[in-house]
Amino acid sequence: MLGVQNNLFWLVPVTAIIALGFAWFFFKQMMKHSEGTPKMAEIAEHVRKGAMAYLKQQYKIVAIVFAALTILFILMAFVWNVQNTWVPFAFLTGGFFSGLAGFFGMKTATYASARTANAARDSLNKGLVVAFRSGAVMGLVVVGLALLDISVWYIVLNIFIKDGDPAHKMAIITTTMLTFGMGASTQALFARVGGGIFTKAADVGADLVGKIEAGIPEDDPRNPATIADNVGDNVGDVAGMGADLYESYAGSILATAALGAAAFMKDTTMQASAVFAPMIIGAVGTLLSIVGIYAVKTKENATQKTLLSALGRGTNLSSILIMIFSFFILKILGLQNYVGVWMSIVVGLITGWAIGKETEYFTSAAYKPTRNIAKQTETGAATVIINGIGTGMISTAFPVLTIVVGTILAYLSSAGWDFSNMSMGLYGIGIAAVGMLSTLGITLATDAYGPIADNAGGNAEMAGLGEEVRKRTDALDSLGNTTAATGKGFAIGSAALTALALLASFIEEIKIGLLRIGTISLEIGTRVVETSTATLADFMTYYDVTLMNPKVLMGMFIGAMMAFLFCGLTMNAVGRAAGAMVDEVRRQFREIKGILTGETEPDYARCVEISTKGAQREMLLPSLLAIFTPIAVGLIFGVSGVMGLLTGVLSSGFVLAIFMANAGGSWDNAKKYIEAGAHGGKGSKAHEAAVIGDTVGDPFKDTSGPSLNILIKLMTMVAIVMAGLTVSWSLL
Amino acid sequence: MLGVQNNLFWLVPVTAIIALGFAWFFFKQMMKHSEGTPKMAEIAEHVRKGAMAYLKQQYKIVAIVFAALTILFILMAFVWNVQNTWVPFAFLTGGFFSGLAGFFGMKTATYASARTANAARDSLNKGLVVAFRSGAVMGLVVVGLALLDISVWYIVLNIFIKDGDPAHKMAIITTTMLTFGMGASTQALFARVGGGIFTKAADVGADLVGKIEAGIPEDDPRNPATIADNVGDNVGDVAGMGADLYESYAGSILATAALGAAAFMKDTTMQASAVFAPMIIGAVGTLLSIVGIYAVKTKENATQKTLLSALGRGTNLSSILIMIFSFFILKILGLQNYVGVWMSIVVGLITGWAIGKETEYFTSAAYKPTRNIAKQTETGAATVIINGIGTGMISTAFPVLTIVVGTILAYLSSAGWDFSNMSMGLYGIGIAAVGMLSTLGITLATDAYGPIADNAGGNAEMAGLGEEVRKRTDALDSLGNTTAATGKGFAIGSAALTALALLASFIEEIKIGLLRIGTISLEIGTRVVETSTATLADFMTYYDVTLMNPKVLMGMFIGAMMAFLFCGLTMNAVGRAAGAMVDEVRRQFREIKGILTGETEPDYARCVEISTKGAQREMLLPSLLAIFTPIAVGLIFGVSGVMGLLTGVLSSGFVLAIFMANAGGSWDNAKKYIEAGAHGGKGSKAHEAAVIGDTVGDPFKDTSGPSLNILIKLMTMVAIVMAGLTVSWSLL
Repeated sequence: MLGVQNNLFWLVPVTAIIALGFAWFFFKQMMKHSEGTPKMAEIAEHVRKGAMAYLKQQYKIVAIVFAALTILFILMAFVWNVQNTWVPFAFLTGGFFSGLAGFFGMKTATYASARTANAARDSLNKGLVVAFRSGAVMGLVVVGLALLDISVWYIVLNIFIKDGDPAHKMAIITTTMLTFGMGASTQALFARVGGGIFTKAADVGADLVGKIEAGIPEDDPRNPATIADNVGDNVGDVAGMGADLYESYAGSILATAALGAAAFMKDTTMQASAVFAPMIIGAVGTLLSIVGIYAVKTKENATQKTLLSALGRGTNLSSILIMIFSFFILKILGLQNYVGVWMSIVVGLITGWAIGKETEYFTSAAYKPTRNIAKQTETGAATVIINGIGTGMISTAFPVLTIVVGTILAYLSSAGWDFSNMSMGLYGIGIAAVGMLSTLGITLATDAYGPIADNAGGNAEMAGLGEEVRKRTDALDSLGNTTAATGKGFAIGSAALTALALLASFIEEIKIGLLRIGTISLEIGTRVVETSTATLADFMTYYDVTLMNPKVLMGMFIGAMMAFLFCGLTMNAVGRAAGAMVDEVRRQFREIKGILTGETEPDYARCVEISTKGAQREMLLPSLLAIFTPIAVGLIFGVSGVMGLLTGVLSSGFVLAIFMANAGGSWDNAKKYIEAGAHGGKGSKAHEAAVIGDTVGDPFKDTSGPSLNILIKLMTMVAIVMAGLTVSWSLL
Repeated sequence: MLGVQNNLFWLVPVTAIIALGFAWFFFKQMMKHSEGTPKMAEIAEHVRKGAMAYLKQQYKIVAIVFAALTILFILMAFVWNVQNTWVPFAFLTGGFFSGLAGFFGMKTATYASARTANAARDSLNKGLVVAFRSGAVMGLVVVGLALLDISVWYIVLNIFIKDGDPAHKMAIITTTMLTFGMGASTQALFARVGGGIFTKAADVGADLVGKIEAGIPEDDPRNPATIADNVGDNVGDVAGMGADLYESYAGSILATAALGAAAFMKDTTMQASAVFAPMIIGAVGTLLSIVGIYAVKTKENATQKTLLSALGRGTNLSSILIMIFSFFILKILGLQNYVGVWMSIVVGLITGWAIGKETEYFTSAAYKPTRNIAKQTETGAATVIINGIGTGMISTAFPVLTIVVGTILAYLSSAGWDFSNMSMGLYGIGIAAVGMLSTLGITLATDAYGPIADNAGGNAEMAGLGEEVRKRTDALDSLGNTTAATGKGFAIGSAALTALALLASFIEEIKIGLLRIGTISLEIGTRVVETSTATLADFMTYYDVTLMNPKVLMGMFIGAMMAFLFCGLTMNAVGRAAGAMVDEVRRQFREIKGILTGETEPDYARCVEISTKGAQREMLLPSLLAIFTPIAVGLIFGVSGVMGLLTGVLSSGFVLAIFMANAGGSWDNAKKYIEAGAHGGKGSKAHEAAVIGDTVGDPFKDTSGPSLNILIKLMTMVAIVMAGLTVSWSLL
């Protein structure tokens, strides 16, 4: 009966292995290239060691947090009986695989940078291929591990969970699997926050003393913080991003599967189709990403423009193919209203693409907004900051309206244009997120390629390679900035859609929690409804999750505040860690003779250590706050308060994340635009103002902004996993 | 039957006249003082002329907007029959009185500045009395006009509205009166945005060219923008604030009255008590404010500290007295659960006070946060900005938690500790806001006194008065900064509470709208409920205003985005207008010979004109957006979308407003702290960085931040007034 569904399901683990195989193959290919001169290899070795030392330290602290949370989950599952017994294990694997994705990505990146620089000595195209294929390792590792984790857990739970009713069993399986999303989110948050603080502390510290005070160029080997800066690109932009997108990708698939299981409790065949559809689309999208990766090549005498179109060709090809393939997947699975569901997928892809374009418009120096910010440098740093903040805030309007239109369309088309068909509508929102992320294998490749090119540039500069090589690595790097804009669009857009889909999962977990404590029926006004068959709308009424309930409204206030508080804590953390770095660099210039003349090598390792310690110390408070706030609000305000909290942090955090990412990106590119010669070019007063803007933007775009995406999802995941506690013990 | 209620009601118009009489008396007293030297009088005349020219221009444009909206309301009321016929008139008077309050306040302030400077030549105490009594004119005009408007409208509507059912009549009267709140909000938004852009364009422009480029001190008469800068303090900080707080004050009383009318539809005596209570508390609070104003005096040889305690004595006295009096007012009115309602008032007063203290902690240089920001100046402007933004964001946590606790307590104590007693709970939230603002007469006096002292300092500087006088006016000004923090606490806190209370009024208007179009019953699930007796909870279910409805969620997204978009537009408006000012000042320095040597007087009027034009041009888009967004969302997404929009803009906007106000205040005081000698003092590198921080903070704290409070309430007011349109014509 479930023949087609089960057969297609096997595509998921098989694709996982194929993806990991290709990742291994690309890695080996990259390793065959030479690291260049001994100096280049030595610098790469410094960076690699620093990055590994950081990651080791990071994983130690994260391990302690995971151990503490696991004990809590074991208590919840085995002692207090408010959660299911698989949760501690699912939680741990989610965290483990997410960390692993970051680790592999970073390992690859640190091996690839010198090789990219060396290849760029030959030609721009060779540099591109090495950098891009190394980025592809990361892309494929992330999707491969996610699909592996998902399919193995499904197989295991399918064997071990005993339940007479197959539909109910599927619901238990999918909601249990969701909890491995919490492991991934927790890991991702630490990776993003810790890595983000590390990278920006090093970057800001290096710039403030090196560039501004000592007047030496970026990536100059005389700057003690320069290795730390390059390490930072790896731990923040590579390892952090890997963990982040692992979480988005797995989260969107799992949330949609859970929604699918809930939507078809009366038809097990249809239920299996709905549960497997997001997984299979992810698998096929991954295969198509590999096709796309192979389409990225260009002629030997390529210009930057042809490079960009080569990258674009790869991602566009994968996207268009998945649009076509997903139609047939849904048709073969025989999913109810499969045309409507397919349209939701298309809407998701278009929404992600559109947000990427909007991001590009607001952050690229090719367009008016960033040009205007660059122009403000003529009246000094203050107007640069005012205009950057203003433009960043204005830029939120377009992605928000895009998501609004996309969400409504995704909902309505899956729901058969009927607002009251909530279960299918929510499924549509989830599968739109899956569609958006289905080609993550290649979009992440174009994204991860950026920091590799950036590091290659650093390597070239420090190793004293010629102007020509540095120009090529700069071209690769600036290309990376454009593709990163697209990547950010997908990351932000999918976070919003996934979080919306997860809200419904929270209610599903509440239902399971109620049944566990023996609440088999609900009194709703004059009606009595069985808990197991109650609809989402019933729960909304039962818990009064309406906008006139003060618990809901106060939850929203706290949620909105959490987004700001979290941002503020991470901003100040960067400030403090950067301050420590500034002191250290100044100390080295003062105490170690001969650094500035190039006679003595500065103490690079000490700077890496300072950034590591700063990041580790500073990441704990904001991260723990993100974990404990949903628990506290649940215990005080109950289900309605938690729903308010989650929608509050979602709406405010989403807008704040766009603002911070775009303002930061825009300042960065305004500075580059001036460095390319506009408004007086390098060394002018205008340049000085632009550097201040860029420095302010650093934590905006690389620490606080991207962490917000994870914050939103982690808080939702925590609420889901803690639903049992909230149901059993809430105060008000 | 309604003896007590009616007798006490007359206290309201009588108090209004007493307050206006005292305002007139204080004004006459102030006018008796001399304006000092001919030079001082001449400068004051320049500022006065500029301010009046601006206000005239401003009111012209606002008049056009009011005319257009009035036509729309006339169509709605008389042609489309979706609104009541009194609305156009109520709307107009609200706008008129709000503008009048701003006008009188500004008129007084422009007469008071030279007189304050002149009095400060004698002693600090004399300066304080002139400035503070002039501030009191503004405070008493605002509350006097508001109480007058409220009581006259009540009397008029009570005579003209014919309805057999007295409870129903009261509901119609109170909801109609609410619409004059929209007039006040519209006027207030234009005043705040226009004035805010004017003042900061002039300030930033004057600082950038004068202080930084030409190296001349603040308020130097050689700076062409200096008069515009002083005009700006009057049009932004005085006229803008007057219109703003007129709106808050009237809005909180009207919203609470409407909630009171809705809560007691079955007991007309109790209903009258509930409707009159907020008005009478406002009236008695005003009388007690006058008592407090007389308590503000100090010895001739006063220090800054004794001055501060003198001001504190006045406000504390009024606050404590109103706590005591309001208990007896409620007891005499015989309001149901009057002890609980009284506790809500006390909670409101304490909440406002606590937010003020928190604001002070985060913005005053006496405490760690601002000291830390000041310390960052040692590593340059970038770290000052990062730390200021970070600290500003962190600072939101405390006021938000304070409001959360305050709201829940105010709700529960009025509701008899029963969450389901929603109508009384919401009344409690409303009356907490009324309590918070009950002593506005004196808190506004301490607030308005700040810009008067600031202008007095400008006058002293330009007129070349001695160092000693300037020191005294600086002492008065810095005192004003501390009291302004408290004022901001009340403004922000009351805005949040009032907006929460207004949400319920929106639903009341929806009910009236449904009845108007003939929907006399609602099908809610399997029940059928009469529209006229449906509860708030019924409407929530009927319109599915729950957090799983995508229309609600998308409304929230748009609301959160609106707060950012509005902020961004006003930030950039300041940037552009300041840019025009920079160009003009540079042009004058270049083209008019002898300005910098002091031989020729610069063309002050031209700078005033440029700021005026800039402000007028720039204020339209954000303001119109605020008005049309609720209409558009209502027409597309209907009632549930509008509720999402309003809660979204409320939660995000509230947090964003606190962030912007506190970050801006903190940068300002960090700069002053350095100017007082810390970290190298005036002229040091650190000072330069601090000036950049302060300049960025200018539009934060004086344009975008304070406008957000009004944005929140205006959007809610628009939704309320347009409820008829939403009910009749919404698309989805």
